[in-house]
Amino acid sequence: MTDLAGRFRKLWDEIAPVGRDSGSGGYLRYALTEPELRLRGWFRDQAAHRGMPVVEDGNGNLFAWWGDPEAGDAVLTGSHFDSVPHGGAYDGPLGIVSAFLAVDELRAADVTPTRPVVVGAFVEEEGGRFGVPCLGSRLLTGALPAERAAVLRDAAGVSFAEALGHAPAGARPELLARFRSFVELHVEQGRALAETPSPVAVASAIWPHGRWRFDFTGEGNHAGTTRMADRRDPMLTYAFTVLAANKEARLRGAHATVGRVSVEPNATNAIPSRVSGWLDARAAEPDTLSGLVEAVHDKAVERARRDGTAVTLTEESATSLVAFDGGLAERLARLLDAPVLPTGAGHDAGVLSGHLPTAMLFVRNPSGVSHSPAESATDEDCAAGVVALARVLAELAC
Amino acid sequence: MTDLAGRFRKLWDEIAPVGRDSGSGGYLRYALTEPELRLRGWFRDQAAHRGMPVVEDGNGNLFAWWGDPEAGDAVLTGSHFDSVPHGGAYDGPLGIVSAFLAVDELRAADVTPTRPVVVGAFVEEEGGRFGVPCLGSRLLTGALPAERAAVLRDAAGVSFAEALGHAPAGARPELLARFRSFVELHVEQGRALAETPSPVAVASAIWPHGRWRFDFTGEGNHAGTTRMADRRDPMLTYAFTVLAANKEARLRGAHATVGRVSVEPNATNAIPSRVSGWLDARAAEPDTLSGLVEAVHDKAVERARRDGTAVTLTEESATSLVAFDGGLAERLARLLDAPVLPTGAGHDAGVLSGHLPTAMLFVRNPSGVSHSPAESATDEDCAAGVVALARVLAELAC
Repeated sequence: MTDLAGRFRKLWDEIAPVGRDSGSGGYLRYALTEPELRLRGWFRDQAAHRGMPVVEDGNGNLFAWWGDPEAGDAVLTGSHFDSVPHGGAYDGPLGIVSAFLAVDELRAADVTPTRPVVVGAFVEEEGGRFGVPCLGSRLLTGALPAERAAVLRDAAGVSFAEALGHAPAGARPELLARFRSFVELHVEQGRALAETPSPVAVASAIWPHGRWRFDFTGEGNHAGTTRMADRRDPMLTYAFTVLAANKEARLRGAHATVGRVSVEPNATNAIPSRVSGWLDARAAEPDTLSGLVEAVHDKAVERARRDGTAVTLTEESATSLVAFDGGLAERLARLLDAPVLPTGAGHDAGVLSGHLPTAMLFVRNPSGVSHSPAESATDEDCAAGVVALARVLAELAC
Repeated sequence: MTDLAGRFRKLWDEIAPVGRDSGSGGYLRYALTEPELRLRGWFRDQAAHRGMPVVEDGNGNLFAWWGDPEAGDAVLTGSHFDSVPHGGAYDGPLGIVSAFLAVDELRAADVTPTRPVVVGAFVEEEGGRFGVPCLGSRLLTGALPAERAAVLRDAAGVSFAEALGHAPAGARPELLARFRSFVELHVEQGRALAETPSPVAVASAIWPHGRWRFDFTGEGNHAGTTRMADRRDPMLTYAFTVLAANKEARLRGAHATVGRVSVEPNATNAIPSRVSGWLDARAAEPDTLSGLVEAVHDKAVERARRDGTAVTLTEESATSLVAFDGGLAERLARLLDAPVLPTGAGHDAGVLSGHLPTAMLFVRNPSGVSHSPAESATDEDCAAGVVALARVLAELAC
């Protein structure tokens, strides 16, 4: 194990500095920006080094084939390189680095798969640049039309098509049909494994979840001269809604977060004319989720009446409950003697699960923290993840 | 009057398009950026057209002299060109345009002042670019040391010294000593005059006011996977503090606003690690103001304990009660038969009032709104402001 942990560390150190912010210690690896393009170059180097031809799907997703790219029945693994702003090192890249090392393990053990094994790197999984999470897998599967993806713009006004260098290809059913199953290895985003002896778990389901934008509008005015009674201050309605979302989520055993806000004009001495807040909400059951969003909206509307402001609610994305292939999850849990856990996070595996049998492996994260520089995993646990993934690939590809 | 209103409109239309955002209809005239530099060029043209030599004080403040620039005992008027983000047209520029027209009025009436009359344009009055309001007048008077001003940076990292093109000169006591009094004409920021027959008022005082930054820190984490009970979310503490500030201000008859917020990482699917909110607070009495800020801080600390977050409070600026020269205000109110009003807004006149007899004139604003595109004044009321200012200048300079 120590030897494999050392090999993991060696490969990990090659990408660790890329896109790292020296201030926060977190990563700024936005899709198709310089750091992520360097990681994609690294991906091609790793594939070439292993004699694995790389297929790009016209949407920005990369697939490195161990076996004949034209043959079907392939077992796909991998994850993504891009990060949230100031995100952690493991979310995404761990699944790609582990996949290459799992290929090495199988080869070192003289395992000859009868089906191709494919390492994938999906583009824009976090939605950190163009606002739509799982953009690459949504394009590949046709869940998002190419025309809509092409015109998504980043904060600087650059469109996805411009960043990609061409219009995205959109759905590739003939490519998708060449995959028989997908297994995504991912750092755990919680502390469930920290309380078990197992460094690895198998996923059961992804909670239904979505993003809703609340736009609060009032009357911009001077902070110094406007009497309190004359104000129509949307920041008050926003603040009340943030607290209401927290309370309503707790009452329902659900998750609600307002982590992003935009203010006009955002000046110290001006009452805002507009405040927008993004609600991220998740729950185990679809009805709980819709009830939560409705309750938060009701509270916002009620408060807006008192503040003399207006509120509109826009659903920006919504993802139904994803139950991973039950037979596959049970089979892998038995194979690895690993616990089975649900998760609140969306993944490319969730998008692909509607099209082919899909599973996820989680690697223990002692901090339980993710989407933050505090995200962590020990080299030994990462090596255990590689071993588990290699066993899964051997099981599915032989 | 109609003739003067027409002349006002003609001059006003020359600057109306400069820095106007076609979306909001508001102005983006940040100090020493392209639009404000164009307005400074316009100022020099207007001065040259009237044979008034322009003195720049080494801090970015411009002074156009009717009379000998080396002679003392001058009567200063004028205001500023810069705006808050998406601010109104009148706040600042009205005082400069009116000053040039008042000079024209005096000349047309063959008034020959025995003292110089000076039209001034102060730099960065709003603090919209470098964060310190009344930056130009604070530098001129020595209230802010040149070394501190030089290193203030805008959002893009450009320092004030870089924007100015050289290190600021700082205090200019020999220049300041050449002014015997200062009168700033300004659009009203409230609706007091809208309820009177008078288009013009004289200021009595500026409420004590200041800016305090609250930094709320917690633990950045994944919005989807982190249990509500495990969170340390600073957005909750921020939201509670916004509502507390509003409530505490109302209880005290004071003004409190949180109009500016900054979030890290400001991503939809990340619990923030840090939220900063800027409190703008003002009250008629200094004790009321300090009691208000203390109460808001106490509430924030109490809530931070519940949220598992931390809060620190930083005073970014504080301005004591400014009582304008009582004798001067009474004299001008009698001269103009105008009401006398206090104001909650800071002005360069407030900074200069510590150094020379200072007064302010307000011109009626029917909307009562300022720091917003809805700020307004009729051409007739602006013309009445010019007439009032010309009478005041004649009174003080003859």
